[in-house]
Amino acid sequence: MDWVSYREATQNGGCKIVLPIGAIEQHGPHMSLNPDVLIPDHIAEQVAHQCDHMLVAPSISYGYKSQVKSGAGNFFPGTTCVSGDALEHYVYDVLIAYVEHGNREFILINGHFENSMFLCEAADKLVKQCRLRNIEVRVYLLSYWDFISEATITKVFPEGFTGWAVEHGGVLETSIMLNIYPQLVDMSKAVHIEPAQFPPYDVFPSDASWVPQSGTLSSPVPATSEKGSLILKECIAGIIEHLG
Amino acid sequence: MDWVSYREATQNGGCKIVLPIGAIEQHGPHMSLNPDVLIPDHIAEQVAHQCDHMLVAPSISYGYKSQVKSGAGNFFPGTTCVSGDALEHYVYDVLIAYVEHGNREFILINGHFENSMFLCEAADKLVKQCRLRNIEVRVYLLSYWDFISEATITKVFPEGFTGWAVEHGGVLETSIMLNIYPQLVDMSKAVHIEPAQFPPYDVFPSDASWVPQSGTLSSPVPATSEKGSLILKECIAGIIEHLG
Amino acid sequence: MDWVSYREATQNGGCKIVLPIGAIEQHGPHMSLNPDVLIPDHIAEQVAHQCDHMLVAPSISYGYKSQVKSGAGNFFPGTTCVSGDALEHYVYDVLIAYVEHGNREFILINGHFENSMFLCEAADKLVKQCRLRNIEVRVYLLSYWDFISEATITKVFPEGFTGWAVEHGGVLETSIMLNIYPQLVDMSKAVHIEPAQFPPYDVFPSDASWVPQSGTLSSPVPATSEKGSLILKECIAGIIEHLG
Amino acid sequence: MDWVSYREATQNGGCKIVLPIGAIEQHGPHMSLNPDVLIPDHIAEQVAHQCDHMLVAPSISYGYKSQVKSGAGNFFPGTTCVSGDALEHYVYDVLIAYVEHGNREFILINGHFENSMFLCEAADKLVKQCRLRNIEVRVYLLSYWDFISEATITKVFPEGFTGWAVEHGGVLETSIMLNIYPQLVDMSKAVHIEPAQFPPYDVFPSDASWVPQSGTLSSPVPATSEKGSLILKECIAGIIEHLG
Amino acid sequence: MDWVSYREATQNGGCKIVLPIGAIEQHGPHMSLNPDVLIPDHIAEQVAHQCDHMLVAPSISYGYKSQVKSGAGNFFPGTTCVSGDALEHYVYDVLIAYVEHGNREFILINGHFENSMFLCEAADKLVKQCRLRNIEVRVYLLSYWDFISEATITKVFPEGFTGWAVEHGGVLETSIMLNIYPQLVDMSKAVHIEPAQFPPYDVFPSDASWVPQSGTLSSPVPATSEKGSLILKECIAGIIEHLG
Amino acid sequence: MDWVSYREATQNGGCKIVLPIGAIEQHGPHMSLNPDVLIPDHIAEQVAHQCDHMLVAPSISYGYKSQVKSGAGNFFPGTTCVSGDALEHYVYDVLIAYVEHGNREFILINGHFENSMFLCEAADKLVKQCRLRNIEVRVYLLSYWDFISEATITKVFPEGFTGWAVEHGGVLETSIMLNIYPQLVDMSKAVHIEPAQFPPYDVFPSDASWVPQSGTLSSPVPATSEKGSLILKECIAGIIEHLG
Repeated sequence: MDWVSYREATQNGGCKIVLPIGAIEQHGPHMSLNPDVLIPDHIAEQVAHQCDHMLVAPSISYGYKSQVKSGAGNFFPGTTCVSGDALEHYVYDVLIAYVEHGNREFILINGHFENSMFLCEAADKLVKQCRLRNIEVRVYLLSYWDFISEATITKVFPEGFTGWAVEHGGVLETSIMLNIYPQLVDMSKAVHIEPAQFPPYDVFPSDASWVPQSGTLSSPVPATSEKGSLILKECIAGIIEHLG
Repeated sequence: MDWVSYREATQNGGCKIVLPIGAIEQHGPHMSLNPDVLIPDHIAEQVAHQCDHMLVAPSISYGYKSQVKSGAGNFFPGTTCVSGDALEHYVYDVLIAYVEHGNREFILINGHFENSMFLCEAADKLVKQCRLRNIEVRVYLLSYWDFISEATITKVFPEGFTGWAVEHGGVLETSIMLNIYPQLVDMSKAVHIEPAQFPPYDVFPSDASWVPQSGTLSSPVPATSEKGSLILKECIAGIIEHLG
Repeated sequence: MDWVSYREATQNGGCKIVLPIGAIEQHGPHMSLNPDVLIPDHIAEQVAHQCDHMLVAPSISYGYKSQVKSGAGNFFPGTTCVSGDALEHYVYDVLIAYVEHGNREFILINGHFENSMFLCEAADKLVKQCRLRNIEVRVYLLSYWDFISEATITKVFPEGFTGWAVEHGGVLETSIMLNIYPQLVDMSKAVHIEPAQFPPYDVFPSDASWVPQSGTLSSPVPATSEKGSLILKECIAGIIEHLG
Repeated sequence: MDWVSYREATQNGGCKIVLPIGAIEQHGPHMSLNPDVLIPDHIAEQVAHQCDHMLVAPSISYGYKSQVKSGAGNFFPGTTCVSGDALEHYVYDVLIAYVEHGNREFILINGHFENSMFLCEAADKLVKQCRLRNIEVRVYLLSYWDFISEATITKVFPEGFTGWAVEHGGVLETSIMLNIYPQLVDMSKAVHIEPAQFPPYDVFPSDASWVPQSGTLSSPVPATSEKGSLILKECIAGIIEHLG
Repeated sequence: MDWVSYREATQNGGCKIVLPIGAIEQHGPHMSLNPDVLIPDHIAEQVAHQCDHMLVAPSISYGYKSQVKSGAGNFFPGTTCVSGDALEHYVYDVLIAYVEHGNREFILINGHFENSMFLCEAADKLVKQCRLRNIEVRVYLLSYWDFISEATITKVFPEGFTGWAVEHGGVLETSIMLNIYPQLVDMSKAVHIEPAQFPPYDVFPSDASWVPQSGTLSSPVPATSEKGSLILKECIAGIIEHLG
Repeated sequence: MDWVSYREATQNGGCKIVLPIGAIEQHGPHMSLNPDVLIPDHIAEQVAHQCDHMLVAPSISYGYKSQVKSGAGNFFPGTTCVSGDALEHYVYDVLIAYVEHGNREFILINGHFENSMFLCEAADKLVKQCRLRNIEVRVYLLSYWDFISEATITKVFPEGFTGWAVEHGGVLETSIMLNIYPQLVDMSKAVHIEPAQFPPYDVFPSDASWVPQSGTLSSPVPATSEKGSLILKECIAGIIEHLG
């Protein structure tokens, strides 16, 4: 999109800007390092395609440091993460640049759990700074998995759900990737593991022995493209229903 | 404790420093603004009392901004929160000051959910900075409620658990406060509400209409001091078992 | 105080918020590490008790780095201090959170000399930021010892005042602590020393040989609870007279 | 690439990490907003494809604020830029994360002139921080256009070169985009203009009247895919020759 | 100038503040370390002398890190440079202090190429912050050498110009210094060298072997005071013409 | 001094670097705005002239915000001050640049009371950062007036000393300026005032009515060049005695 078309699309603040934010983080030996970027980016494109007055901004690839209990930890080769304030300031600056163009509504689609609080902070500071200029903005912040219903979980995990806490590199993400980027998944390398179990605290520096060697927190083996399709449809429909 | 006694207690790095970190945040019309400080402080004292070589540091009272879905939001009168980087840097500086005294092990007892990621960041930066000095530190980070078992939950919620997500100012915190600071709880002001329900995203600025008017996210009415005692005993025992 | 009561107390900006700010710093082998917190906290409570429309905020415990000539230095075990910008940002954030509730007047009661300039900076930035929102705030900043008269000094030091510069852990602070927290003072451990003398410059890193080994800068031996009472009464009355 | 393959590729620090860094910035009504990202990304891929032991990292899309004399200014709709310190810290954090994996050599391929000094600063701070860990890294920083020879310029501008200073959205960038992403260029919208002329100083806030209304600083009309191919081949070959 | 006279001179915002900004950086064995400060300071004084309503502010001596290709690099003894954000914040703070006095127009005269982008950032942030206060400021940013015409270059380099890129410590700066501070130049120590040649990229840490051992990037030998006078006259006249 | 001479002078870390740090601040209607810069600069030059192995670095002109009780306040026209962190980071960066050249000892000569704590912080951070590199530095920090003896005070104030607290723009500074820069003092504009008196607290925003209208805190009328000479000699001799 060229700048003249952009100006037309965004004039009068009538357009929602959708910003996908992810991470570069290992997701097991069977998958590329970027599902946390590709999935929100895909969802953003699909949502915007079905809604008027929505534009997808270039995604932000590098997210906050992977934590052991949600992303298997920041010590894995390939897991390439930034500090919280670097992420917060970068996202804040991108958002305020869009505000300068007259945009007033934003949908941040997060693909990496650990980003959440830093995106909150960026959004909160944006709102306050804009008020100093007598500008009211509205920032919607979502993690796509929060739109998955229990009904879908039951279908995707017919033998019982192992729990959200261990869904790193497991059935959910792998199924989605099989659906949208099958060339980035090699199920022959998928490692079956029992769901990870953790003590009720964290420790720094991280203790690598807490984490399954494969890097996922539960088994990706039952993943299928069909399950991915089911999940994606629900997320996309849910986002449109609430924020479209 | 005077400095000479402190020096003896901490020499050779043989002492764990326990740092309670909380928040000043409304917890309903029936309770003071500081349960998130008082509870971890109480737990820290009890744990340290039962363990050798543990010292409780003065607690940090002001925590990260209350979020709607976990703390009812930062817009309530009395909810008095700091930004993420202010919290992170303050905690980091306190920890590194303790490292200068020769201390090498830390237990951060968190009493406010929203603090978690910023405490992670402080701990991670501490570890890295200390390594530049060839010092290995170990920081344990815990939120006390993660030591509550399902068995206890069943006892505390005989009519069914309403879920962790809405336990702000509800039965758990109120019961603990009734047990340790009954003078700061006035159950005659406790408001019965249905558990709060939220859409699957956040919005900034916060939408006050999402939150029950009383400021809690579930009903504190069934709280009792006995339930509080049960919870505390389990948390204290659990922390000692894992980290004592 | 619960949030509903807080809202009533503070509505229309008619309430002054009193914020005690101290430090964790050795004060000799005869005293605990926290007089710089406990004393301003006590004064704040007494002042607020005697004035309408004043609320005491939870105190801030960790202050700026102890300096050799005023606090015997940052290298003592137990002296646990934060950097200037961490203190400044933390205090600033706390104040602006109180501004959000509608409060417009603040009294910062400082208990640690080294904090002063960083509190100035926090107050100055607060005023400027609030003006961007068309909010006029007023921040009073005081160190309690500035309310002690020469007459009182003469009574407290009948054999001659050794000077403000060396009053760290000496008669003034020890007397106050004997009056309000006698259980935290053990006069049997008080070490008599001659007043410390320093060259007319500072050096970094600090030179520990400049400082008396006990950690105080003058002798605490003549301290009594009665002297403490005298001092406190004057400080409290003075603060009320000027700012009540 | 999955993390196990990544580990193999990067072990022993034997791999160069190529990081493309661009900007989202208008480039005239005939072109998309992202040539400064797409071009260095394309070059990075081509270079890495022809060299052993080189990996392309996910690119960084948002760059430093467009300046009037080099990018037509930060006030154009669609030009979406971040502050210098946000860019610097984000890039720094990404690089140090790659260092943690054992990587020691980096090639930053810059596609946006205004980024240069902030990338210098990130590289310089990285080198210094790594030295504190006794790690020697080497960061090569290049802007791809610096590999274009005078001979090529003569071929691309048979009627005379209008100068590097006004090559924003002109023949060079447009030709490259025509070659690699023809679907993102619409030559029917290309506006012929005389090369922009500027006074010998800058002014803030920017004066929009200094800039041609189309947003380019010289005419893109003579651009062709063949010219783009010529330029790209030279840049890619040059980078390989110097840094391959 | 005393403050009462200053107040008169600046009232009603009718005065332009001229701020020279330089660097402490080696300029060859024949010259002092401060031409980047002294030259813009001299030009500022001359310009202000010839214009009404212009005041020269005390100059800022320490600038951004010398780069190999423009200043021979930050590794030379005597080259004493600050980081980008330190420079930016210091300049920003100075400017906003002048705004507080009612000043609205600023001319930054830069004497050190590497400062440019950080001065842009300071100016941009100043403009934005002032707008929050409904204050419109205007900041002119110039590097004095941009006012030198081709005609003058031809006169100063009768045997051909070696190019702007290598004019560090060469004929231009040396000639100016010979004209205004001859006591700080010792032409007997001037080293003749061929113009430096560099590869089309930068490397960090810097490679000292890229740089002529004398520290200049071209030969200062042909410098004369007369050439300096010619250059200065043109710069001063040009600045007055554009901004006087 | 050229860089080759500088290298010789500083090699083997055998040289002390003397850095004068001041402020731009009104000092009454009878004096220029820069005594806080000129006086420490003069003292530095004199000290270095009389000592071997000492070099004076270019001074830092803009200091921390003038406070009402020590500098009459930051609201006077002409008082042009920076924030604490801008000063701290700028000074820190300058010092670490000198460390890079092999220098290990620094004397900071402060001419502006309000700078003190921020210079402490810069020095403390420098020491800690250098230790990470296994470099031991030593930073002496002094305010020149701390070298004035009581005997001199008695001579300079034959009718009784009005106290250090109100010596802003009074006899001490005016006498020194009369001695070293008589052309910057106009005693015909000196205003006689009674010493300023202040309440025992500070207030933000500052209350201009607390401050004498002339901007000094005591009378400069008795100042003479002879008094200035006496003071300077003692300061210079004292600094040499302690740190030469």
